[in-house]
Amino acid sequence: MKHLLSTQDLSAADAIRILDTAEEMAAVGEREVKKLPALRGRTVVNLFFEDSTRTRISFEAAAKRLSADVINFAAKGSSVSKGESLKDTAQTLAAIGADAVVIRHWASGAPHRLAATDWIDAAVINAGDGTHEHPTQALLDAFTMRRHWARLHGTESQGTDLSGMRVAIAGDVLHSRVARSNVWLLRTLGADVTLVAPPTLLPIGVEEWPCKVSYNLDDTLEAGVDAMMMLRVQGERMNASFFPSTREYSRRWGFDDTRLRALDELGLKDTIIMHPGPMNRGLEISSAAADSPRSTVLDQVRNGVSVRMAALYLLLSGDTRETVPATTPSSKESH
Amino acid sequence: MKHLLSTQDLSAADAIRILDTAEEMAAVGEREVKKLPALRGRTVVNLFFEDSTRTRISFEAAAKRLSADVINFAAKGSSVSKGESLKDTAQTLAAIGADAVVIRHWASGAPHRLAATDWIDAAVINAGDGTHEHPTQALLDAFTMRRHWARLHGTESQGTDLSGMRVAIAGDVLHSRVARSNVWLLRTLGADVTLVAPPTLLPIGVEEWPCKVSYNLDDTLEAGVDAMMMLRVQGERMNASFFPSTREYSRRWGFDDTRLRALDELGLKDTIIMHPGPMNRGLEISSAAADSPRSTVLDQVRNGVSVRMAALYLLLSGDTRETVPATTPSSKESH
Amino acid sequence: MKHLLSTQDLSAADAIRILDTAEEMAAVGEREVKKLPALRGRTVVNLFFEDSTRTRISFEAAAKRLSADVINFAAKGSSVSKGESLKDTAQTLAAIGADAVVIRHWASGAPHRLAATDWIDAAVINAGDGTHEHPTQALLDAFTMRRHWARLHGTESQGTDLSGMRVAIAGDVLHSRVARSNVWLLRTLGADVTLVAPPTLLPIGVEEWPCKVSYNLDDTLEAGVDAMMMLRVQGERMNASFFPSTREYSRRWGFDDTRLRALDELGLKDTIIMHPGPMNRGLEISSAAADSPRSTVLDQVRNGVSVRMAALYLLLSGDTRETVPATTPSSKESH
Repeated sequence: MKHLLSTQDLSAADAIRILDTAEEMAAVGEREVKKLPALRGRTVVNLFFEDSTRTRISFEAAAKRLSADVINFAAKGSSVSKGESLKDTAQTLAAIGADAVVIRHWASGAPHRLAATDWIDAAVINAGDGTHEHPTQALLDAFTMRRHWARLHGTESQGTDLSGMRVAIAGDVLHSRVARSNVWLLRTLGADVTLVAPPTLLPIGVEEWPCKVSYNLDDTLEAGVDAMMMLRVQGERMNASFFPSTREYSRRWGFDDTRLRALDELGLKDTIIMHPGPMNRGLEISSAAADSPRSTVLDQVRNGVSVRMAALYLLLSGDTRETVPATTPSSKESH
Repeated sequence: MKHLLSTQDLSAADAIRILDTAEEMAAVGEREVKKLPALRGRTVVNLFFEDSTRTRISFEAAAKRLSADVINFAAKGSSVSKGESLKDTAQTLAAIGADAVVIRHWASGAPHRLAATDWIDAAVINAGDGTHEHPTQALLDAFTMRRHWARLHGTESQGTDLSGMRVAIAGDVLHSRVARSNVWLLRTLGADVTLVAPPTLLPIGVEEWPCKVSYNLDDTLEAGVDAMMMLRVQGERMNASFFPSTREYSRRWGFDDTRLRALDELGLKDTIIMHPGPMNRGLEISSAAADSPRSTVLDQVRNGVSVRMAALYLLLSGDTRETVPATTPSSKESH
Repeated sequence: MKHLLSTQDLSAADAIRILDTAEEMAAVGEREVKKLPALRGRTVVNLFFEDSTRTRISFEAAAKRLSADVINFAAKGSSVSKGESLKDTAQTLAAIGADAVVIRHWASGAPHRLAATDWIDAAVINAGDGTHEHPTQALLDAFTMRRHWARLHGTESQGTDLSGMRVAIAGDVLHSRVARSNVWLLRTLGADVTLVAPPTLLPIGVEEWPCKVSYNLDDTLEAGVDAMMMLRVQGERMNASFFPSTREYSRRWGFDDTRLRALDELGLKDTIIMHPGPMNRGLEISSAAADSPRSTVLDQVRNGVSVRMAALYLLLSGDTRETVPATTPSSKESH
């Protein structure tokens, strides 16, 4: 791997390698001193054309835990706003010495343009591009599901995929890069995926995606679900015409208290409830659901740092062809 | 101590422990290499819902001098502005791996809400909440006064309090968290405190505070003062109706050149003039006063870093029950 | 050297010392681990009163590569906007522990005011002040030219100046601190400098500058040029009355494709094309020129980090009187 741009073009082997490395990184986080020297002297630039404090901070924490230097570049108010092209910005960052550029961009495809050309030498990590992809989000979701699935079956996470797991993703699929990245990755890892949304919030061509589509959340739950992922309602992205009233949305597409009880009634005692955050409590998810023992919301955040450490580590540290990062001090101990 | 939220609930023993540790930290700052490894691998998040470059930079410098990683989170333009609750923001930061959250918030009580619940595991440090408290400011003020008081009496600072010291705090007490935090802490440390302000700039219930109240700055000076603390006029917080003209304010409530001369005439040769900054020169303090040898304004800034190092050190480094931080390389040498 | 404020008052010896040290720093950048411990425990504050992500990031990367701690202070929204004076801001930063203050200011002369007084102890580095100077930009330009000039003559860069080199600087000289700083430094280093601009974009008194002035870019090229530096058209600084149409500007003052071909036709096969960035492609420089093998645009960015490392190193690390930074681990190896 030279870049991490999408989950659509990620092989199962590479995906599992990232998840396995993330397990190593998570083990580091549980020790007294949480820092690894692996990326000392490397520079990671967070190039954000769109605000996303959460994602930026997660990458920043991940890079610092690997002892990399981090430079934050919020494109607003920068030379970008003086009309500089993406190419010139990227080449400038590479010339300044960036070993990795973590890019969040409002335009779908921007990270690919950086990486597909010979513009820069640095590794490019897509931290969300338009309505297209958000691969590290999908990887951290998969990491969370894999741990849950392994625990449920009494096995080790390492090396396993998600074969047989039933995942439903509900909400505003149309505008969601999280949904896109998850559908591709989950499919690669062997899970069964169902999208649940009103027709107006589904993208054109969804019937060609490797998943089922449902228009009824309750039917989907009744059919059986192991992981229920609620998407954020992105008020700022939504055209009013797509959107029923808040109460109506919550009743039909939100994971409310009634549905939380329904999981018990349906005997789905091990089903987890996921959300990429930030949550609109009371809209796509009720507070009871968000705070219930089923909720993995904070696990997802925690795992995000491990997954991003893994991605940075694999892209930046010398020989990336071995499955186990042998130069990590942790790798020996945590086996 | 698990958190540092206010000075009102800080015991004399804890306050003195922080001040004594800050003395150790100040000694470190005077050496060739200023960095201690004490908090290596720890992450400090500056969560600022209100701009305060000064306070943020002071905490950032303090954390970095202890080798902690620092992540700055300006809540504007973040998911907070997308409607995320304080609870969800805080839990997200904890999940990302924050060991301490330094919070500045426009709402009085916000840091307490973070800390009083079981929302997060991280240490919470109040860096100013609404018109309520700003405990590290009061601690750095006390540190500055204690050094002055010890020097005046030819004693060591370590272990001492402020018994017998006369402190006056003048200006917009109503809106000042600095005044509140100072009143409680100074009282705990044995000082005599007088608030000096027009009735319209005093809070309701001030008569129950552990201090005297005066409506006349010149009378207060005449009665004898060892430390004169001028509060910042916070134009942005003040309702026009409270506020006389600038010239009128300066004449009645400012430490102007006449009052600077008065200190000499009154024989108060050791009285210091304090200000938390940033100063409105010519309003609550004249340039001659701000730049006079009596002024401790820059000492306060300098001491702020030491006090914040002490707070971070005591909250984050393992066993916090010993008075002397035995694991600090400096502690041996500076005794 | 205590400060780096301008190139006008920089001696040839000091300039060459900075360039030579930058060569050492560049050698470090080419190794596996790019970090030097030279400034460990030192604090560099980037005090920016004007947005300039490029320059800020370059200084940040330089300081971090020397293991310094970096604190970014964007003056917007800070206490500065609450009316604090430059003096108080600077003294506050010094009291917080800044060893160097890198200042970008919209007012010409602001860095000199900081340094010329006894306000602060810290080293002051001018990162661009008004339309006045931008010394590290000129130094990185000189560094780039010197490497080119040495390669052309089959000599070592170290210790040499630019005697005999013909440099043309074209465009909006009136508003350009880059042009000013370059004219002084290039003259000190022995180069022949020609400014090329319409009379309306030349400053009053330019006839007293140590350079030639031309009103015709094609004539200048025909006379022979070794380095052609195009200035950025600063739309935000320009009064509409100075400025012909975009097409007209490009035709008369831009380095367009016709002029790129002219270099070949004129037999100027070794002439380089320089630009400080960010570029307005199609305005002062065509894409073909910007991306041609003659272009040093990215070399300039790369060299900027080395030059800023050198400046920080020489100003902050102990004895600065030796020409070779003997305490740098690299100095031995790279000779």
